[in-house]
Amino acid sequence: MNNKNVTATLLLSCPDRKGLVAGVSAFLYHNNGNIIHADQHTDAEKGIFLQRVEWELKDFKIPRERIGEAFSPLAKKFNMKWHLRFSDYAPRIAILVSKEEHCLYELLLRQRMKEFNAEIPLVISNHPDLQPVAENFGVEFHYYPITPKTKSAYEKRILKNLEEHDIDLIVLAKYMQVLSANLISKYSNRIINIHHSFLPAFAGGKPYHQAHQRGVKIIGATAHYVTAELDQGPIIEQDVMRVSHRDSVEDLTRKGKDMEKIVLARAVDLHLRNKILVYDNKTVVFD
Amino acid sequence: MNNKNVTATLLLSCPDRKGLVAGVSAFLYHNNGNIIHADQHTDAEKGIFLQRVEWELKDFKIPRERIGEAFSPLAKKFNMKWHLRFSDYAPRIAILVSKEEHCLYELLLRQRMKEFNAEIPLVISNHPDLQPVAENFGVEFHYYPITPKTKSAYEKRILKNLEEHDIDLIVLAKYMQVLSANLISKYSNRIINIHHSFLPAFAGGKPYHQAHQRGVKIIGATAHYVTAELDQGPIIEQDVMRVSHRDSVEDLTRKGKDMEKIVLARAVDLHLRNKILVYDNKTVVFD
Amino acid sequence: MNNKNVTATLLLSCPDRKGLVAGVSAFLYHNNGNIIHADQHTDAEKGIFLQRVEWELKDFKIPRERIGEAFSPLAKKFNMKWHLRFSDYAPRIAILVSKEEHCLYELLLRQRMKEFNAEIPLVISNHPDLQPVAENFGVEFHYYPITPKTKSAYEKRILKNLEEHDIDLIVLAKYMQVLSANLISKYSNRIINIHHSFLPAFAGGKPYHQAHQRGVKIIGATAHYVTAELDQGPIIEQDVMRVSHRDSVEDLTRKGKDMEKIVLARAVDLHLRNKILVYDNKTVVFD
Amino acid sequence: MNNKNVTATLLLSCPDRKGLVAGVSAFLYHNNGNIIHADQHTDAEKGIFLQRVEWELKDFKIPRERIGEAFSPLAKKFNMKWHLRFSDYAPRIAILVSKEEHCLYELLLRQRMKEFNAEIPLVISNHPDLQPVAENFGVEFHYYPITPKTKSAYEKRILKNLEEHDIDLIVLAKYMQVLSANLISKYSNRIINIHHSFLPAFAGGKPYHQAHQRGVKIIGATAHYVTAELDQGPIIEQDVMRVSHRDSVEDLTRKGKDMEKIVLARAVDLHLRNKILVYDNKTVVFD
Repeated sequence: MNNKNVTATLLLSCPDRKGLVAGVSAFLYHNNGNIIHADQHTDAEKGIFLQRVEWELKDFKIPRERIGEAFSPLAKKFNMKWHLRFSDYAPRIAILVSKEEHCLYELLLRQRMKEFNAEIPLVISNHPDLQPVAENFGVEFHYYPITPKTKSAYEKRILKNLEEHDIDLIVLAKYMQVLSANLISKYSNRIINIHHSFLPAFAGGKPYHQAHQRGVKIIGATAHYVTAELDQGPIIEQDVMRVSHRDSVEDLTRKGKDMEKIVLARAVDLHLRNKILVYDNKTVVFD
Repeated sequence: MNNKNVTATLLLSCPDRKGLVAGVSAFLYHNNGNIIHADQHTDAEKGIFLQRVEWELKDFKIPRERIGEAFSPLAKKFNMKWHLRFSDYAPRIAILVSKEEHCLYELLLRQRMKEFNAEIPLVISNHPDLQPVAENFGVEFHYYPITPKTKSAYEKRILKNLEEHDIDLIVLAKYMQVLSANLISKYSNRIINIHHSFLPAFAGGKPYHQAHQRGVKIIGATAHYVTAELDQGPIIEQDVMRVSHRDSVEDLTRKGKDMEKIVLARAVDLHLRNKILVYDNKTVVFD
Repeated sequence: MNNKNVTATLLLSCPDRKGLVAGVSAFLYHNNGNIIHADQHTDAEKGIFLQRVEWELKDFKIPRERIGEAFSPLAKKFNMKWHLRFSDYAPRIAILVSKEEHCLYELLLRQRMKEFNAEIPLVISNHPDLQPVAENFGVEFHYYPITPKTKSAYEKRILKNLEEHDIDLIVLAKYMQVLSANLISKYSNRIINIHHSFLPAFAGGKPYHQAHQRGVKIIGATAHYVTAELDQGPIIEQDVMRVSHRDSVEDLTRKGKDMEKIVLARAVDLHLRNKILVYDNKTVVFD
Repeated sequence: MNNKNVTATLLLSCPDRKGLVAGVSAFLYHNNGNIIHADQHTDAEKGIFLQRVEWELKDFKIPRERIGEAFSPLAKKFNMKWHLRFSDYAPRIAILVSKEEHCLYELLLRQRMKEFNAEIPLVISNHPDLQPVAENFGVEFHYYPITPKTKSAYEKRILKNLEEHDIDLIVLAKYMQVLSANLISKYSNRIINIHHSFLPAFAGGKPYHQAHQRGVKIIGATAHYVTAELDQGPIIEQDVMRVSHRDSVEDLTRKGKDMEKIVLARAVDLHLRNKILVYDNKTVVFD
């Protein structure tokens, strides 16, 4: 396989101690690795060390398929959790939607414009409305009219779809259903949701109504990984915009869509670039 | 009295109906008033009309002390609540503080630099620490070591101080005590507080600890009028700044101070310029 | 014609003098007009008064086709320049593009999602690349391979297209050609361009290269009306985002696209809502 | 000397090559250094590697006064430019001002509140106005009524003052004079200026007038190191705020002051924390 311009990225976390940076950088140096990005963070309070290091595969002495094995002894020594990613692998995304189209379009367009290094083979919805959008982009679409009664059965079909398509990342692009704990645990730290408020303010439903009612001067949007607790998962990215008394609920909703789609797209982009580490229900986002 | 460059500002609210703008503008025009700013807002949902209109006293046919009387019939006809303010009156501010000095300095400096058209004759604290700061600016300082037991007695002395100094506006500049319902109702919509979070997120104590714990990517500050319900009063101004996993609680606290003082100063400035109308626990801020 | 929920908007500017607000509001009140928004601005230095007033056609005594005529005497008296718009008219937009698709998609999608009250019957380009995008949305596409030699001839064809389609507004959505003074003057204050920098910084070509070279910490985008002087027209809207030393020119370009499309869409939206008045090469944007 | 909680920070830059990270981290590890922050940047285009690494002196095997010597062989091998700083050294700042006081107060207050780890023994001005402010904080003040004729003579006295006070950092806090090339070169990358615009827009004088004239929707402030070319030095920090047609030049000036003082304070803070590396007329700001 051609390794020209391909990079490997190691994301790791472990108990903090001396020699970690020296250990990892020596491993790469002795195998002729050219580091192009390295960043680290120490949570002094919890005693946790987190690192992201990216290097060129070109001229690296260990073949890509054997890097994990070669790194294992060091990882074991320092009790590391770690992931290894290669930049020429395009993760496979499933998008779950309901009726609103702005986030879906945003993701499909960015993928088509090659801003995302990803495949999007699958769109699933609990409403039929966005089928034409998915098909317009040549993406398989499944409509499951989920009700409390049918939810469990349909989730099995969703899981089957996800597996058949080898999905790496699930994006909830204004998906107005709560996923089961089972599905969430199967895709731990691999489900990104966009919440249309500046969490933790206005968690739950109808955040723009809540914001209007409260008379806030700034509204926001939050992209986060989904956990079993609603709207409580690790925050990946947030942004805000100023509003005023002139803005009705409809105005807030309309203006908020711009933030929602941009914030969601940024979060997906960070995930795809392997910039995010999760610990203690928080994210470390290496820029 | 010399009216050169002096303006009058009318702030009014009433049930919405036709003829309001025409009525007010005809009143001013027929008395030879030159409008220099006029702004209005209609809350269509609640059927409320709010207006701010500012005109030059120079050449205005009605003497300033009789404008209220002359306006009354129109106000009655439309069932208006209204305030009349003159730009050459410098409102009198009392600042309540605890131990932190950055907001106190900010307000004292803006007054001294003449950014605020106001007098600051009084600083009150439940700690003695900031006495030198107040005295440095030649401002009377009272220290009341409030405890649950002494609270009621000390508030009487605070009220007396406020009255003796003809205070128009109370600013809580990191005052870590809750005011009594009695004091609050006496200075309704005339007490401004700075809360060091993006309300309604992280209401209550230790907001920077909460923000750090939750792993948010943006922190904020909120200036609001004080009502009997803690942290629930009408929001005047908010601002935010980006933070990251690198920021400890101490970093958030330090960075947040910049926002706190700027947001508080902006809110006080808007109040002093008579730009704010309150209704339905919300503000209309005419810019 | 059904006037239910239809509004009329008057945008006017004239030399400042007393009685303007009273005159306009009396005109509306005496004809039973219900004002739903009114905003004004006085440029004291230049002595210019500008106003936007919007009222319901329902129950208005003057039929819509005769409002202009009825307003004329007042307009003459005060020497006003004025425009009258009705909310049920959907302006007709032509989009000019080159090769980049993100702004084109943004505009087409907003129109399709009904965020824009507008028709988009025409896309014109100096490259064939985006023909499929236009056709996908059912929009007529013309490809004119403009060169210095053919420019004049092709502009005649563009003008013909614009006229045949009764175009009200031209949007340059990353159109990498300079329009002739003739075309610009025919669509004065009706051509909106997006410039990928925070004007006046980095006017001219390759702004992201310039920004990277200069090492700025914030990049921006600017939407403006096109005038004969390149990048010098009245600014409608701007926005910015933080960047760092880590961002390469490619990163700036990629990140900047988000701002470009959002800022351009906001400017078009403000134009379509008749919120903008131009004077002295500046805009007044009534929010 | 007690090294409890004291850290050493190494700021280095050199031609990029393999083994740099490994070399530095091995040096620290073998001397029992506990890294608490490490960050690096590679400018791939220019082939330059830049790094900031901070470690605890506690338990470090090399005494602080011999660290430089011990590091030298590695630095030589990689052809590094480097600085070594200790966190218990408080740099000495001279502030140069003219008539405006907001930035001066901001810096003096932050030092007094211990937000800055620094001493401020010296304020110099070409006007006498701010002498009381300096003296109020117990800081030596020199007034030099600089004119084109006397400039050269007074700069000699300024230089003498700087040397006598062992000044490490000069801050131009709205100092309305241009420094000589000689003084600038003596304090290369150690003079911070605040420019009241979003550079490179509105370089030169009267930026708020220029911004108002141009009708921009956002204004900014820029802190940069001073070089011989006016307003062209490496940018450290920038920020912006929204403005509108309602803002007069006076409003822009007043509002801009908030940004100026905050941006200047942030830049000084970054310098004091040894977070900035300069190369190629740009800064790398390690956050």
